[in-house]
Order: sequence, then structure tokens, then C-alpha cells
Amino acid sequence: MRVIARIKEMQEWSERERCAGKRIAFVPTMGFLHDGHLELVRDGRKRGDRLVVSIFVNPTQFGPQEDFAAYPRDFERDRKLLDQAGTDILFYPASSEMYPDGYRTYVEVEKLSHFLCGAFRPGHFRGVTTVLVKLFSIVRPHVVVLGAKDYQQLRIVCRMVEDLNLAIEVVGYPTVREEDGLAMSSRNAYLNQEERRAALSLSRSLKKAESLVLEGERESRRIVEAVRSEIDKEPLARLEYVQVCNPESLEEVERIDGNAVLALAVRVGRARLIDNTLLKGRRG
Amino acid sequence: MRVIARIKEMQEWSERERCAGKRIAFVPTMGFLHDGHLELVRDGRKRGDRLVVSIFVNPTQFGPQEDFAAYPRDFERDRKLLDQAGTDILFYPASSEMYPDGYRTYVEVEKLSHFLCGAFRPGHFRGVTTVLVKLFSIVRPHVVVLGAKDYQQLRIVCRMVEDLNLAIEVVGYPTVREEDGLAMSSRNAYLNQEERRAALSLSRSLKKAESLVLEGERESRRIVEAVRSEIDKEPLARLEYVQVCNPESLEEVERIDGNAVLALAVRVGRARLIDNTLLKGRRG
Repeated sequence: MRVIARIKEMQEWSERERCAGKRIAFVPTMGFLHDGHLELVRDGRKRGDRLVVSIFVNPTQFGPQEDFAAYPRDFERDRKLLDQAGTDILFYPASSEMYPDGYRTYVEVEKLSHFLCGAFRPGHFRGVTTVLVKLFSIVRPHVVVLGAKDYQQLRIVCRMVEDLNLAIEVVGYPTVREEDGLAMSSRNAYLNQEERRAALSLSRSLKKAESLVLEGERESRRIVEAVRSEIDKEPLARLEYVQVCNPESLEEVERIDGNAVLALAVRVGRARLIDNTLLKGRRG
Repeated sequence: MRVIARIKEMQEWSERERCAGKRIAFVPTMGFLHDGHLELVRDGRKRGDRLVVSIFVNPTQFGPQEDFAAYPRDFERDRKLLDQAGTDILFYPASSEMYPDGYRTYVEVEKLSHFLCGAFRPGHFRGVTTVLVKLFSIVRPHVVVLGAKDYQQLRIVCRMVEDLNLAIEVVGYPTVREEDGLAMSSRNAYLNQEERRAALSLSRSLKKAESLVLEGERESRRIVEAVRSEIDKEPLARLEYVQVCNPESLEEVERIDGNAVLALAVRVGRARLIDNTLLKGRRG
């Protein structure tokens, strides 16, 4: 595995590989890799002749009160894991390389960016879409693999790739969970033992919602109430939002007729955790 | 010359040419071509092995009160002119191809987009940068040639290309003028004979400013006053703005120490005309 830190070097590598007829798969990450990332990486490995993974803790997607400085980092460990997983190129640029002095350009996906997490993290998705347009210009992948845990992010990126004609296939990889159900996240590292236990309320509440729908419940309001009461049982967990929404437009739906996505964000200690599940309103 | 209307076909052509080692030059236009455009096209012809010209009257860069519907169009004439000028590909997409239903993504260059014309045409440069990111993703040029008459646009595009790592050389081509000094513009077609004469006040006022600087004037305020009085002599001309600014940041400067750009916008009849010139504060 080769580590590339310079944008120009990465672009030259990609142009060469593309022109040699190689299909480039790409997994963008913020590092501090867990098994969820590694599953994306293994999936990417199968989807391309060449596999590029990036590690970049992107400052523009963190709000001023958020955890940019504290975000966990362990480059040496990540490097080894990616090497073992068959990565060809680890792209690892400095912040000053990505956002030099005088930087001014931002990419925004309207509407989709303002629901759900967007309402609580103003500017967050603008930072995500901006850095991804940059990374896509630099890596020039044919296919990119993103985790479906960040469901809203996945939808926004699909919209952006289509709108800007980036000619990239976007693959959403199913959320990877610990054995007890907790969705894998680098931010789980913030949790102490008690908080770790309280964090199980997220997946438990999603299971509860799924059962209700299986039993015939179609009213979003009832499902939201059930989730809320499940989270409220945990004194260490504080619900930020829970919503049932259209899987494409992310707009809130009152009834689950076709498919709907149930998404929630919960604060546990200093971690802000998100999770989601697909609710299937149509039987059979 | 081949005319391509579909995005996917254009992208496939470009990828093939790039991988065959061909350098692609690109001149984006809104059509209704004049000699100014054709000089850009001839310049582009020299800069690439392949030359792509686009014609697309981009709806997102027009305000609701602006001249999108009235903007002059003559595809058959344009097609002939581009063919004669040695264009390889004329990219001519439909609006519905560029902005399908559900379109949501916009690219913005902060600060630079809010000075000068940006203050009078809210959203204009956002539309320009958005369509250009799309066109650059579709045409994948190595070099793009833009007219320097739209000086602010040129600066914004340079910034954006650098910020988004688009790996494109941006060439600003000097403003092409009629013999009497009027900067060429598709919007000159809106002018009747009297207005055409009044429109000469733009280039005349720039000449006046250049002379003042040659004679030693360094105060922006005095230069602005001279321009204003030149425009005010024409009852048919209405000054929208005139400003002396830093050529890079576009910020207003009080004194001309190094180089500065004098930019103005003037309404004559239903035409909104712009022009600019470089003022050299340093002698020799």
C-alpha cells in the first residue's frame, strides 16, 4: 500500500490508472477505523481493480461547538488495518493541502441538507458535500462505498453526484453492528461502560419500531412515541430527534404506506449517536 | 464538427480522448456568438488537441426579473460559425438534461460572489459556478478559455477551480472590442442605434480613468467620480456601479498602489452592460 499526501500526486495516479482501463473504487473515511469501515473497505476491494481509501478529518463539517479537535485519531493503526485489507492507495492529505488560505468554495444540496441531522448541525452537510466533491475530483473514482448508518448523508451524496454529473456509482453499505446491536461508529470511543449500555437504547428502539410495523402499525406518530419512550427509559440518553421520513426526499411522513426510514439522533455522554432503519409498510 | 446533446455521450467522448492522450480545450458559451466568442474559440483551438464548445443558456444564473426568456438565440448560425472555427464537438444540452426534476445542488464561491455585479444580481454567480462545475464534470477539459470582460466571473471561476481541485487551467482572454471601443456582448443586440451610441460611454469612461492614472492620479474616489460624470453625460445610460478593486480579492481599494481593476455596470435601454480595465498604479 502506498500513502499519498499530495493532491497532485493522487490525481496523476488516478488519471494513469483510469487510462490503463482500471476501475477505481473509493472509500472516504475520517479514520479511527472500526470493523464497519473495514467492511466498506472489503466491499470496495471487490468493486474495483484499484482501491483508494482516504483518511481526512474534515474541519468544514464540524460546527464551532462540535468535536473536531477531540475526534479520535490513530494513523499508525489505521495504516496497518488498511494495508491488511488490500488497499492500494491511502490518501492522507493535510488540512492545509485541502483548505489553503483564501479557500472560498462550498457545495450545498438544498432541502435534503436541512432535515433531520441538518436541523441540529447547521453547515454540517455543506462541509460533507464540499469535501466529497474535492475528494472525488482528486481520486476520480468509478465507484464510492459509503456507510448507510449516515442515511441522510448517503441520500445527499447520491443527489449531489447525480446533480453535478460526477459519473460515479454510489454504493450504500448496510450498517455494521456490534453483537449487541450498537451501530459501529468512531464516536463510540467516547462512551464509558455505563454510557455504552445506555447507547443500546438506539438499536433497541429501532427494533421496537420494526415490531410495531410488523404488527400492523402505520401511524408515524405512534412509532415515534414508542421510540421516544424506549430512549427515555435511559437516564444517560437524551433524544435529539426521531423521525419517520420518505427514503428519497427525507420529508416527514405521517403514515407508512410504502417504505419509510426511521432515523434518530441521541446524545449519550459527550457522544452524539445516530442510527436508522428501513420500515416496510407494505406486506409480503 | 459533431453536435452532442446528451451528457453521457459527451462524458464518454471525453474519457476516450483523455485516455488517448489528447488535450481537451473548452469554451463554454450561452450562444448568439459574436467575434469575441470566436476569438476565444480560435484561442482554444490552439491550446488543445481537441476543442469542445458548449452552448447553454443557463437558467440558474438569471434572476426572476432578468432576461432569460429574451436572451438572444440563433443555434443554426452559431453551429455554422463554430464548425468554420474548427470546433470538434459542440455540446448543446437541453435544460431538462442539465436540471432534471428534483435538482438540488449548488456551488458557491463566498465573498468574491457578493461584490460588484454580485450585489446587484443575487444568485447570479451561484448559477454560473454551479453550471460550470457541471460542464467541467461533463467535458473534463484540460484547459478552459473565458472572456475577461466578465472579470469578476473569471476571478470566481479561477478560485473555484483551485478550491475544488478540478485540475483545469483557466485562461482569461482579453476583452474583444468593436472598432469604436464597445466591448462585444450578446446583449449588445438589445441596443437600438441611439442606445448603441450611448453605450460607448462605458469604454470612453474607462479610457478617461486610464489617462488619469497615467497622469498620476491614485485616489480611487477621483477616478470613480470621473467615470460617473462620463456616464452621466449620456441621458440613455444609467450607471449601476463603478468600483476600483483589488484584482485578486475584488475588494474595494481606496488608493491605486499596485494594480487595480476598474469595473462598472451600466444600463442602456433594456441592456445591462459591463466592462472593466486594469489600472497600473506602478510606473514603468
